[in-house]
Order: sequence, then C-alpha cells, then structure tokens
Amino acid sequence: MTNAAPDFADNARVAGGKIIPVDVAHAPYDIVIGQSILSESGTLIRLRMGARRCVIVTDSIIEPLYRARLEAVLAASGHDVRGAFVVPAGEASKDFAHLQYLLERMLEAGVDRKTLVIALGGGVVGDLAGLAASLLMRGIDLVQIPTTLLAQVDSSVGGKTGIDTAHGKNTVGTFYQPKLVIADVTLLDSLAAREMRAGYAEVVKYGLIADPAFFRWCQAHGGQLLAGDHESQIYAVGVSCAAKAKIVADDERESDKGSRALLNFGHTFGHALESATGYGNLLVHGEAVSIGMVMALRLSVEMGLCPAKDYEEARAHLASVGLPVKPPAFAYDIDRLMELMAQDKKATGGKLTLILARGIGQAFVSRDVDPAQVRALWKEFLV
Amino acid sequence: MTNAAPDFADNARVAGGKIIPVDVAHAPYDIVIGQSILSESGTLIRLRMGARRCVIVTDSIIEPLYRARLEAVLAASGHDVRGAFVVPAGEASKDFAHLQYLLERMLEAGVDRKTLVIALGGGVVGDLAGLAASLLMRGIDLVQIPTTLLAQVDSSVGGKTGIDTAHGKNTVGTFYQPKLVIADVTLLDSLAAREMRAGYAEVVKYGLIADPAFFRWCQAHGGQLLAGDHESQIYAVGVSCAAKAKIVADDERESDKGSRALLNFGHTFGHALESATGYGNLLVHGEAVSIGMVMALRLSVEMGLCPAKDYEEARAHLASVGLPVKPPAFAYDIDRLMELMAQDKKATGGKLTLILARGIGQAFVSRDVDPAQVRALWKEFLV
Repeated sequence: MTNAAPDFADNARVAGGKIIPVDVAHAPYDIVIGQSILSESGTLIRLRMGARRCVIVTDSIIEPLYRARLEAVLAASGHDVRGAFVVPAGEASKDFAHLQYLLERMLEAGVDRKTLVIALGGGVVGDLAGLAASLLMRGIDLVQIPTTLLAQVDSSVGGKTGIDTAHGKNTVGTFYQPKLVIADVTLLDSLAAREMRAGYAEVVKYGLIADPAFFRWCQAHGGQLLAGDHESQIYAVGVSCAAKAKIVADDERESDKGSRALLNFGHTFGHALESATGYGNLLVHGEAVSIGMVMALRLSVEMGLCPAKDYEEARAHLASVGLPVKPPAFAYDIDRLMELMAQDKKATGGKLTLILARGIGQAFVSRDVDPAQVRALWKEFLV
Repeated sequence: MTNAAPDFADNARVAGGKIIPVDVAHAPYDIVIGQSILSESGTLIRLRMGARRCVIVTDSIIEPLYRARLEAVLAASGHDVRGAFVVPAGEASKDFAHLQYLLERMLEAGVDRKTLVIALGGGVVGDLAGLAASLLMRGIDLVQIPTTLLAQVDSSVGGKTGIDTAHGKNTVGTFYQPKLVIADVTLLDSLAAREMRAGYAEVVKYGLIADPAFFRWCQAHGGQLLAGDHESQIYAVGVSCAAKAKIVADDERESDKGSRALLNFGHTFGHALESATGYGNLLVHGEAVSIGMVMALRLSVEMGLCPAKDYEEARAHLASVGLPVKPPAFAYDIDRLMELMAQDKKATGGKLTLILARGIGQAFVSRDVDPAQVRALWKEFLV
C-alpha cells in the first residue's frame, strides 16, 4: 500500500484494520474492518454494548463455515448465545415466510428488548436479519458481520432492510441502522471468484461517483484485491464504507433532493437488466451494475456531458478484471426494459431520472433524460 | 366548559376544535380534534401534505359506518383513493396473516413512496395500518383517524404499531409516527357505552399521573362526557393528547430512564388481569386499567407513600361512572398473576418495577417493590 490511508480513527485492537464511524442522527455506529477479526467480534461487541443475550441469523452456505467459530468467540466474551437460525442461501429467502419463521424462532429462543441480533452472511441475511431486528419488540440491537465483498462495501452499511414481494424487490422493509458492522476480509477467502468480482463492481462505483483518486487506486490494485490480498481488501472496503457512510449520514432515508441517490449510479440500467433476465444466474447484481455504469457513462458521453476518454477508461478497467461491460445474449424486449427503468426511478413529464457523470468521479442526478436517447443506447448495447 | 382551555394553537378550520402539535424529533405532527371533522379530513390532509394517492385500512364494524363518507370527502379534496381494505373487527386481526394480507393488497392497489395510508378505526386498525405503513417501501406516510375514545386519547398518539404472536402482544412492531391524527368526537356517537367507559379510564389516567386539576375536571364533567357531550369530549381528548404528546416528545422509544413508562400507570396489574382472563369479554383493556390504577394507588397507600384519601377519591370516581374497581370473579391463580407482572416489567434482583403514586397527579416509577406486598394486595382484591 503506497497510498495514504484515509482519515480513520484507529483502534489498537484491530491490528492493521480500520474503524469508520457512521454519523447517522441519534444512532452513530462503527464499521470495524480488518483481518481475522471474526475472532475479535465478541470483544468488539462487549466493549461497545456489554455482555448480551444474542441470536444469530445466517444461511445454509455460511453456517458450516463460520457459525461454530462465531458462537465460541461470543461465548468466550461472556455473551449468552441463544441460537443460530439458518435460512436457505439465496434471494428466495427474502420473503414473508422466512421473515415470519425467523421472528417466531427468535421469540421462542427468548428474545427480549436487550437481546442482540447478529447477521452473519451476505446481503440476503443482512436484509432479513435487519428487518427482523427492527420488528422484534419494536426494534432491538443489530450487529452486521458481512461475509461477501458486496455486503462489506454496500448492503451492510446504510440501514436498508427488506424482503421481496410479488410486487418487487424490497417493497416491504425498514430503515434500521446496525449498532456495529464487523467486516473481516479473511471471510472473503471462501468467496467464489464470480461473487468477488461482482462485489468489486460496487467498489469501483465509489471511485466513479466521486473519487477519481480511488478509481486510479482501483486500476493499480484491483487485480491484487481480487486475487485475495487482504491489505488491498481492507483499504478498498475502508474507502467504500467511508464514502457510503458519508452519504448515508447526509441523507439516511434517500430523500428526493438528497445525495443518497448517487449510490444508484449504474443501478437503473442494472435493475432493468436483472429484472429482464429474471434475477438469475445469467447476471448477478454486481455484474448488472458493472454493465449499468458503463451504459450510464456512455449515455453521458452521447449527451455531450462526459469526455469519451473517461468512459473508455472505466470500461477498460471493469473489463480487465473480468466484469461484463455489455448485456449477455438474452431474449430482450426494449419496450420492457424502458418500462422497468421508468418504474425504477419515477419519470416526471415523460423524462427519465438517471445518475449520469461529467467524468470519472463526477456523478450527478439528471431529471430530464430523453427516453428516445436511452432507447437508442439499448439498441447500441444489446446484441 | 368553565375551565380555561389548555394552550393550543388554534385553527379557524376546526370550529370549536383544537390542534395539538406533537414535537417528535425530525417528524413533528398535528393532532386535530373537533366535532364533525371527518368531513374536513380531505382538506386537513391536503393543507399539510398536498393531494395524495391514498389507501384506507378499516375494520368490519367501522366500514359500513364511515368508509363511504371518508372516500367521498377525500375524493372531493382531490385525493386519489385507491381502495379500502377491511380486516375483521377485534384483536385477532393483529397477526401475521392480516399484516401480510394488507401489505399485498396495498401493493396490488399501486402503493408507491408517495402514497398515504389512512387508518380509520380503533386501536387494532391503528396498530395494523401503522405497521403496514412503516413497512411499505421502507415507510410511507400515515394518517390516523381514530374512531374510539381509547384510540383518540391513547393508541393513535405516540407511534407504537404492532401485531401479536404466540409469544405475546405487540412482540412484533415498530415505532412509527403518523403525519397527522384527526380525532372527530362525533364518531364516538356510534360507540357502545362499555367501550366509551373503557376509553374513559385512560382519560382519568392522565389526571392521576400528573394533572390533579384535570382529575378534578373529570370528577365534575366525566358524566357529561360519557353521556355524549361533544364539548367535554373535545376538552378531554385535547388534554389527554397534549399530556401524551409531551411525554412522547420527551421519550419517543420508551427508554429505561425515560418518562414514557409513566403512561403504564395501572397497566402492569391491568395486563396481568387481561392475560389471566384470556383477553376476552370478561374484562376489556380500559376496564383492566381502571382496576390496575386502583390497585397501584392502594399499594402506594399500603407502602406509606400516598394519602388514603387520594386512593378513595380516585376509586370513587372510577366506580361512579361504572368502571370496575376490583377484578371480576374468575378462576384466578396468584402465582400466575405474579409471573405475568414480572414478565411485563422486568424484575431486577427479585424486586418488581411498578408505577406508584404519592397522591393524585403524582405518579412515579418505583424499581424496588417487594413482591410479597404485591401478593398480599392480590389477596385483598381478588374475590
């Protein structure tokens, strides 16, 4: 690491790691990032919240890997672990049935107002456990231990919880901030290469939105990060969380005028693609975001807002690490894609709202994108 | 009305009515109280929030009485009413199945982030609709139109939402403040006498907790109020809401040290009785609170904290309006009642936490009540 570390409050307990404070009104919390800090989680929790009654939520992939270790570490720090509740891995678990299952099992396990819910897993576990914690006894404390790169840099920070319904993803949920996030990059060692790359797309996003220097860092170190270098991972997770924390502190509930919308860079195109391809294995979220960011930059170039060179550079970097930069072959329908985009961000007066960019690190919200131009862009990108 | 009105901001639109601001951090809102103001609800909402897409939640008793009028009034003010969803009247509707039903019907009706949920009903409807509003798209706006005295003076104010599970009442829920409460005392004309009296117990509670002058007013005017006098009702709902609003603004989430616990005066005894009698027709919530307040005052006398005269006066007033002041005959079990009380407010070191009083209008939280003394009190009160 030759780059200067961002301005973190450091903590001697987390050797080589970082602590990022998230300054949400009335409920500030820390994101602790480091290597092998799952083993420190009992202590990190006890120092902030005392010894607690705990329940763990995890999924069928993570459970055999880390559940026993987490339980042992919590017990060793004096916490009273009342059970670990396992949902099947995958987005299908984000539904009413699994939410109700978790709430009832946790109540059976003796959850009270002082009990702590610990989410050990990726975005699905974090969203479900976060929603359950926000609902039990009208809200009990929550700790996130994200186990994927995507969850470490994105979903575990910011307090969005949710389940999906027949009417869309996350149509039922809450804004509910955790009391602590523990991001152990060592847990990423067990992640499949494709999932790691998909999470990396969200890392690059922070550079593309507002931090050109971090984009340069990604160009220089992205390969190392994806190859499993823990130092690069700690640095990138730290910068990403700090960027997201700043935006969330400014605009916790994604108001119309707020800055939180910038986090959706690449996501309106991406969501349309994810939805049109059935949220399946053909295209996972981070891959859709990668394509979406490329398309948003391309549109910005075509609207005369962004130098072509910036688009080319971003595209080249994403492609160089193996992320897709154009949609895969599928039976597409441009009318349907346009409709999905209009749903995602409400159109006003026939125009579309999209996050565009004036260059790398210069994203902004545009509320008057001409749908005809977006339609032409789809024709250019779809094969 | 010979008493001076409390210090309300007045509003010309609500003839003879009152507007009480609730100063909850980041989300202040008004409680508007008056006669025949259901007819003004479309305007009251439009003035504060603009013309909105709306969905109504109500129950099988209220629907035939007021749904059509509310829909007409909303439409006349330019709101777009997308549907009214009806749950069976009664506590049994506060469950997962009805929550899921409401959420799915509302999403089908086209709820988006700008849609308003209107709760038209008593406490059950308010709790369910409030929870649904807090969950849809991670929280959309909510207006409460309470139709019972209990809901007008208590449950519609303060932002507690919830459903019941096998593990207890309101074990799943949120804190979620409405954007507006419209309390039309004319709706109370359709209320059964027993329900009116039960709600009145919560009115008297505000006097007993912290407002001796209001207790005197209750002694003088309670009979009129219960006989259907709208002016007395407006005054009492106003004083009650102002008292609750002040406490809620001070302690929104019922912290351990906060003042919100005082609102539970009479409730620990009351909840034990409600639970032991099966939450049935033998004893409704307000009746249980009436008995509970008498018992809390009696205990305060026996602990040498409160003059016997204050206990006698409170007891006499509640009895004079037809409220019960001792438990009905039922197959009781004092061990079970003690256990229910210990559950309700966590005991620490073998002692019970209870709201006691040093006299009328002087309630306080006591954390070291001797269980043996409470046991003796049950023996005194149970027949």
